[in-house]
Amino acid sequence: MMTPTIYDTLDALGIRLGDPVRPAAAFVPWTVAGDLLFVSGHIARKDGRPWTGRLGGDLSTADGAAAARATAIDLLATLHAATGDLTAIRRIVKLTVLVNSAPAFTEQHLVANGASELLVEVFGAAGAHARSAFGAAQIPFGSCVEIELIAQLSPGRDAA
Amino acid sequence: MMTPTIYDTLDALGIRLGDPVRPAAAFVPWTVAGDLLFVSGHIARKDGRPWTGRLGGDLSTADGAAAARATAIDLLATLHAATGDLTAIRRIVKLTVLVNSAPAFTEQHLVANGASELLVEVFGAAGAHARSAFGAAQIPFGSCVEIELIAQLSPGRDAA
Amino acid sequence: MMTPTIYDTLDALGIRLGDPVRPAAAFVPWTVAGDLLFVSGHIARKDGRPWTGRLGGDLSTADGAAAARATAIDLLATLHAATGDLTAIRRIVKLTVLVNSAPAFTEQHLVANGASELLVEVFGAAGAHARSAFGAAQIPFGSCVEIELIAQLSPGRDAA
Repeated sequence: MMTPTIYDTLDALGIRLGDPVRPAAAFVPWTVAGDLLFVSGHIARKDGRPWTGRLGGDLSTADGAAAARATAIDLLATLHAATGDLTAIRRIVKLTVLVNSAPAFTEQHLVANGASELLVEVFGAAGAHARSAFGAAQIPFGSCVEIELIAQLSPGRDAA
Repeated sequence: MMTPTIYDTLDALGIRLGDPVRPAAAFVPWTVAGDLLFVSGHIARKDGRPWTGRLGGDLSTADGAAAARATAIDLLATLHAATGDLTAIRRIVKLTVLVNSAPAFTEQHLVANGASELLVEVFGAAGAHARSAFGAAQIPFGSCVEIELIAQLSPGRDAA
Repeated sequence: MMTPTIYDTLDALGIRLGDPVRPAAAFVPWTVAGDLLFVSGHIARKDGRPWTGRLGGDLSTADGAAAARATAIDLLATLHAATGDLTAIRRIVKLTVLVNSAPAFTEQHLVANGASELLVEVFGAAGAHARSAFGAAQIPFGSCVEIELIAQLSPGRDAA
């Protein structure tokens, strides 16, 4: 009996990692400093296009959480591309979750849970992270959610 | 004569650290990577409940600074819980201060000072930090302020 | 023949670094933790005063990109002040670009390119960075752009 790998867990969740999203502008998808991996803000996408809309406007909290979960899957694809193997991720350190918010919408934390819960499902305890979530006035391409991530690499996988 | 400790300073300021706030959602209050301690965004609270309101709306800049100071006290409680002893904090590295802002409010820096000044009062030079402050469209639970923090741990207190 | 230095590149671009901006409030312009240099949010300035306005309102995307470029020049002045020599910068790790945005403005990424492209012009491959860009509800002093930066220092230049 083999211990299930992160990739087994992704299979069991029915998640297939696609190609990493290419930045739409003049930056790179990630950088490494020592054992910290800084992943650029990823906007929510649906069917390969920006998942547009505003929470408290045309989108419900459940919509937002689904968009955050989809964004976390895109972040996993980028983490895989950055490392070649997700087991090189020692832990998820920090998430910043920006929620495109109408003035009266105050459930950014519930939207963000769509991403946070997936990361814990995939990485277990190593997926539990510090987090900030708040309302943005807008997000590039009118996307409803944007998430940036800091991960720590396993010893021997850093770029020191 | 003993040099006053951080806890003596807190006593002299009349600050009593409560229990750390428990996250309202699927994340942890802090993570450690090497000697960096990443503290999750803490929302402002008053009497144990979200300190709601918007700067430039129903709250004045002075209200906001008081809310930021209260949030910094909650952050200290979390730092104490994370370390067991605030002397394990080598320095406060960075604060991000989100201010729930009406469109015309432009004194986010003065609101943020409520937190920044307290940290310098408590930690002295080790409390002087890099900072960003800006207006958020909303904050979870309608809180008026949210603050996240990065601290550096003293040698031997890291999790490397 | 000498390899052109970063300062030669700045000269060729017609960029003269001024004195670093002094924080308008109770914080410091940068902190160092190990080999990471955390630079405080710098607001856009024009002729030494806040570069005010809102994207999607009184400012065009091109205006915003020019403001972001000007802010990146101020960030370079701070990096120079922090290190005494920009060759001590091993790489630009991460930019967070806040864009003062009217509700319908969705080109924060194009605004942010004004800063990102300059950093790559100046530092070459070492200037390519992870990035998040999004719309803020407001920015201190009504500035149109605010940028914070994380850089990695060269070996031997850290504060470990």
